Amino acid sequence: MWRDLHPIGRDKDTTGYRRYAWTAADADCREWFKEQATARGLTYELDRNGNQWAWLGDPTAANAVVTGSHLDSVPDGGAFDGPLGVVSSFAALDELRSREAEFTRPLAIVNFGDEEGARFGLACVGSRLTAGVLTREAAYGLTDGDGVTLPRAMERAGYDPEAIGPDPERLARIGAFVELHVEQGRALDLSGDPVGIASSIWPHGRWRFDFRGEANHAGTTRLADRRDPMLPYAETVLAARREARLAGAVATFGKIAVEPNGVNAIPSLVRGWLDSRAADQDALDTTVTAIEKAAHDYARAHGVDVSLTRESFTPIVDFDHALRDELTRILGKETDPPLRVPVLGTGAGHDAGILASSVPTAMLFVRNPTGVSHSPAEFAAEDDCLAGVRALADVLEGLACT
Amino acid sequence: MWRDLHPIGRDKDTTGYRRYAWTAADADCREWFKEQATARGLTYELDRNGNQWAWLGDPTAANAVVTGSHLDSVPDGGAFDGPLGVVSSFAALDELRSREAEFTRPLAIVNFGDEEGARFGLACVGSRLTAGVLTREAAYGLTDGDGVTLPRAMERAGYDPEAIGPDPERLARIGAFVELHVEQGRALDLSGDPVGIASSIWPHGRWRFDFRGEANHAGTTRLADRRDPMLPYAETVLAARREARLAGAVATFGKIAVEPNGVNAIPSLVRGWLDSRAADQDALDTTVTAIEKAAHDYARAHGVDVSLTRESFTPIVDFDHALRDELTRILGKETDPPLRVPVLGTGAGHDAGILASSVPTAMLFVRNPTGVSHSPAEFAAEDDCLAGVRALADVLEGLACT
Repeated sequence: MWRDLHPIGRDKDTTGYRRYAWTAADADCREWFKEQATARGLTYELDRNGNQWAWLGDPTAANAVVTGSHLDSVPDGGAFDGPLGVVSSFAALDELRSREAEFTRPLAIVNFGDEEGARFGLACVGSRLTAGVLTREAAYGLTDGDGVTLPRAMERAGYDPEAIGPDPERLARIGAFVELHVEQGRALDLSGDPVGIASSIWPHGRWRFDFRGEANHAGTTRLADRRDPMLPYAETVLAARREARLAGAVATFGKIAVEPNGVNAIPSLVRGWLDSRAADQDALDTTVTAIEKAAHDYARAHGVDVSLTRESFTPIVDFDHALRDELTRILGKETDPPLRVPVLGTGAGHDAGILASSVPTAMLFVRNPTGVSHSPAEFAAEDDCLAGVRALADVLEGLACT
Repeated sequence: MWRDLHPIGRDKDTTGYRRYAWTAADADCREWFKEQATARGLTYELDRNGNQWAWLGDPTAANAVVTGSHLDSVPDGGAFDGPLGVVSSFAALDELRSREAEFTRPLAIVNFGDEEGARFGLACVGSRLTAGVLTREAAYGLTDGDGVTLPRAMERAGYDPEAIGPDPERLARIGAFVELHVEQGRALDLSGDPVGIASSIWPHGRWRFDFRGEANHAGTTRLADRRDPMLPYAETVLAARREARLAGAVATFGKIAVEPNGVNAIPSLVRGWLDSRAADQDALDTTVTAIEKAAHDYARAHGVDVSLTRESFTPIVDFDHALRDELTRILGKETDPPLRVPVLGTGAGHDAGILASSVPTAMLFVRNPTGVSHSPAEFAAEDDCLAGVRALADVLEGLACT
């Protein structure tokens, strides 16, 4: 299964994946999904928002158990983020069939479209549209780097953009959604466990810091006469790291835009984007408030203006407690010796986080020995992947079989 | 004179000038120069490298006195950097004619092409070609942001790129070159004098710092597991300011490029450009060596690699001492009460700096009340501009008249 999927959308030079929504690489991934569904005699369905479904049992019956993830990637992403969840879903079904499990609830495997948002800048477009948290109008306004709109891109890929919109009937038929994903940190590596269960997705947000000073000649302007916005920016970057460490949060300045961005020009504008996340809202507030204060203080000291804009914010997603306890019970019971399955939070967004507001939702994480993610170096050992498949099979059996 | 020149190449929104080499705005400036020359009965000449000359007396005679500057601009530059020198040259000639001065040496006013290097990235192309410090082959390799080569741009503007190259015969006919320029710092403002004489152009260079870390997920990567190159970059920016202050130099990080430059990605690469200048080579070496050491130390502390490339370097330009003393003598003598004319260094490059290696060269600076340069806010008061014209007229009279 992996073998067919591996070469799709892989860049020869970086060895990273470039599987962006509604591109040729995405179409190849979708074709692979359809083949896997058909080969197993599952009912294949493409929903109004471009998400793919493979059904065992009646798709229109209620209380279905759904598993899956996504196949698209970030720029130069790794092989596991997304695909591991979809491949493991098919493998878990194969495992359950070899166990001759009898299903009492419908089972579906899903591939959500455009999870990474690499092309149109918004993550989880497929699940957001389905859950109604992204409106059709807003989706129509999404544009890629070449100026191609989302509906135009869908049309070019042979899909009908007229159809997109909320799909509450589909959601109402789902009794539980379980997403398996490679861990994007090192918690399981540090605890020494192959598989974990998600407790929550950390609250996170993006803030834009605009430091405005005065453009001037880098050779002839006395230091004392400068209003150089690069200096308070640099101090704020260091403050962000310090404050995040103090609060047990994470804070990153990964994107910057400078004007005029000339070697011999003191900048007039340094625009930096802060990404910050923490296990709870209090820790995040503490971190960001302290960074904001530092930015204002440093800017003032350099005669620079600073303005802050919160560009996005997602509150904490607490996964369904009953379903989480059920997973803990199943995974604790089914193995011998009992599998220790830690419950852990994550700083990354997922389709499961979007669906959690409409459907009882849970996530399984598979150990990532380096924690590296969104990079060609992303990795999970084969034994851990197989442990993930077994855990997912156990969970699906516990939820959907007699 | 100013009135005709003012609107050329001025951006409506920024009110800054965009007079880039071999563009329509540049052609309009050149047409203005030709008109000024013709209206005064001067002999107009375009040299092989696209520099414009207006001659009073025999262009082929020896020991000419030349004055002038440039008419092109940086992106959104001010009205004075360049044009003040050319306008003042014509005004000084008018003044000398009204004084009925009798010329014993030929006099020329020059407009050097492409001084700012805004389009092709290299400053002083016209004077460099003439002085033979830029080869024809290297000039042919210059390309603008749209991929247009310098020879192609010249051709499109109606000039013959085949002709470009060193012009030693022309240089040999020049006995002295005097460039008047708006000051790009606040030395004259602080000393309270309208006009100054240049002592030297500070040695200066550009260094590229490549900080290479590891791209990773900004939400899920523990702080302890990061190799984030933005952190040592930020520390190096602050070290540059600190070290420059200690050594009495200037140091600026005004340009940056980040990969992948995503809000939720720890960067793999932060590339920052340092511009540093000082009054002498020792002070510059001390500053840059200390910044380099700081960059290496900070990078090591964050598990980040750093490599340094010196992209350009220009040693100190000491203007001809005899000519400088002559100017001091002339300006001290001619006014009543005697004009106090301070001698000062400058951190900016000029065509005069290029010519200084071939021709006795001097510069006059006109007070800039804010020191702001390369910006629409660049300014010189009318009284100071008139003082500059009188000083230049005195100098030309002292050098070229009986």
